[in-house]
Amino acid sequence: MTTVDKVRQRAESDARTYGYYLNPDPKFLRDLLEGLKSNEERFGYPACPCRLGSGNLEIDRDIICPCDYRDPDVAEFGACFCALYVRKDVYEGKTPVQPVPERRPVEKETRAYGVAPTSPVQKTKPTLTAATRPAEIKKKLWYCRQCGYVVFREDPPYLCPICKAKREMFVQITLGVDEAR
Amino acid sequence: MTTVDKVRQRAESDARTYGYYLNPDPKFLRDLLEGLKSNEERFGYPACPCRLGSGNLEIDRDIICPCDYRDPDVAEFGACFCALYVRKDVYEGKTPVQPVPERRPVEKETRAYGVAPTSPVQKTKPTLTAATRPAEIKKKLWYCRQCGYVVFREDPPYLCPICKAKREMFVQITLGVDEAR
Amino acid sequence: MTTVDKVRQRAESDARTYGYYLNPDPKFLRDLLEGLKSNEERFGYPACPCRLGSGNLEIDRDIICPCDYRDPDVAEFGACFCALYVRKDVYEGKTPVQPVPERRPVEKETRAYGVAPTSPVQKTKPTLTAATRPAEIKKKLWYCRQCGYVVFREDPPYLCPICKAKREMFVQITLGVDEAR
Repeated sequence: MTTVDKVRQRAESDARTYGYYLNPDPKFLRDLLEGLKSNEERFGYPACPCRLGSGNLEIDRDIICPCDYRDPDVAEFGACFCALYVRKDVYEGKTPVQPVPERRPVEKETRAYGVAPTSPVQKTKPTLTAATRPAEIKKKLWYCRQCGYVVFREDPPYLCPICKAKREMFVQITLGVDEAR
Repeated sequence: MTTVDKVRQRAESDARTYGYYLNPDPKFLRDLLEGLKSNEERFGYPACPCRLGSGNLEIDRDIICPCDYRDPDVAEFGACFCALYVRKDVYEGKTPVQPVPERRPVEKETRAYGVAPTSPVQKTKPTLTAATRPAEIKKKLWYCRQCGYVVFREDPPYLCPICKAKREMFVQITLGVDEAR
Repeated sequence: MTTVDKVRQRAESDARTYGYYLNPDPKFLRDLLEGLKSNEERFGYPACPCRLGSGNLEIDRDIICPCDYRDPDVAEFGACFCALYVRKDVYEGKTPVQPVPERRPVEKETRAYGVAPTSPVQKTKPTLTAATRPAEIKKKLWYCRQCGYVVFREDPPYLCPICKAKREMFVQITLGVDEAR
């Protein structure tokens, strides 16, 4: 069973790994953790409590917490989109929290609209076009040119979870072919 | 050379990464670390000090510390099978340590019996059957549908070491084929 | 933009993950972080500030900080080659810092000489031989036999970043073939 304490522990240990902090406001933090818990119960995965989850894992993948956008957002704005994860200076009150613009590409948001169970925008589910059909989400093997970390995703992460290299360091693996350039 | 201090440092940093603690009883902890050290010297890898190691890496893989079962055991019972790793509330004495049942599947334990060098059960090594022959341990490429982490194992981990997704999030990679569902 | 604070934060969180410490001398530490920052600006990646970077990622890959040699050096000598990362006992002043010999293989250093933009050794760039041409750097898929971690590199890491197994635990993946031995 998912409990708020389990969700909190996971977020805390993840924050520690990356040198982040959880939001210092206990009430605000608890609301976010409750949101994660209820999304995990609804969808089977902790989709971002501040965005519209579709219930389709392939479509929501980039907004499962910690979302794909957390690392560049904390680096640039001092907090993730939700302000669940914050930078040290923000945690210590040295830098005020600033609004974090949505970094998720519009195409990915659009994919979610058609299938979201609680979509506030559309009452009837439209026929998915080829562009939005989850089956069209092609995954590839990528590797980090800095440390060699391998992932199987639609596109590479913003930050390598192992060596913290930037997204630009990831290239596709073509097996059996010399990768060096 | 393996020293108890090196074993301790590795366990400490691993506990920190996952938000766990090492057993608060110094004598008990030292005994476990000594057990890990002697297994590492005997086998070349730190097999669990509370289970029967076979000396065959392929057969013991799931019980190399931190074993495959640690994460679900700490989550459910507050401690791993050995009680080397414990949850915060157990570490702080708020929750008593409870007995942790063996989560390792019987088939995997059975594979170890036939080949264990110090097996208390069998004096003569039986001819391995097809089911227990390490050559029959088929490994596959798995990926975490949440973060894309890739592993090459017989079966996926209970917890994704990168994003902490549950085992159910792992599916096999079939290269060159659309993975989305 | 890269700032010394970002470089410091990345190094701090990485040290924490592995149970290391950053050099306790603030002036010395700052110089190293400045060196990393300027290498990141020059090359696009934080090459080791204590070694000759070539500006060619494939050739410098093993000396991008945290370099491939950090883990065995901290384990054996208490500090990495630069003394950016130190062991707890060194950090606490219980063990003096000792000189750390260069662990990088001569072949890899030699590859860098021919192409280094600021090479103090050669004024004219020699024609690269087959042995030093980056195109000859063959990468392979390796996996950790202990935890299943997969990397795509010329050779495996000294320490598995997931389970901390030693380099000897890594073997090449041959897909579609039984890997067990």
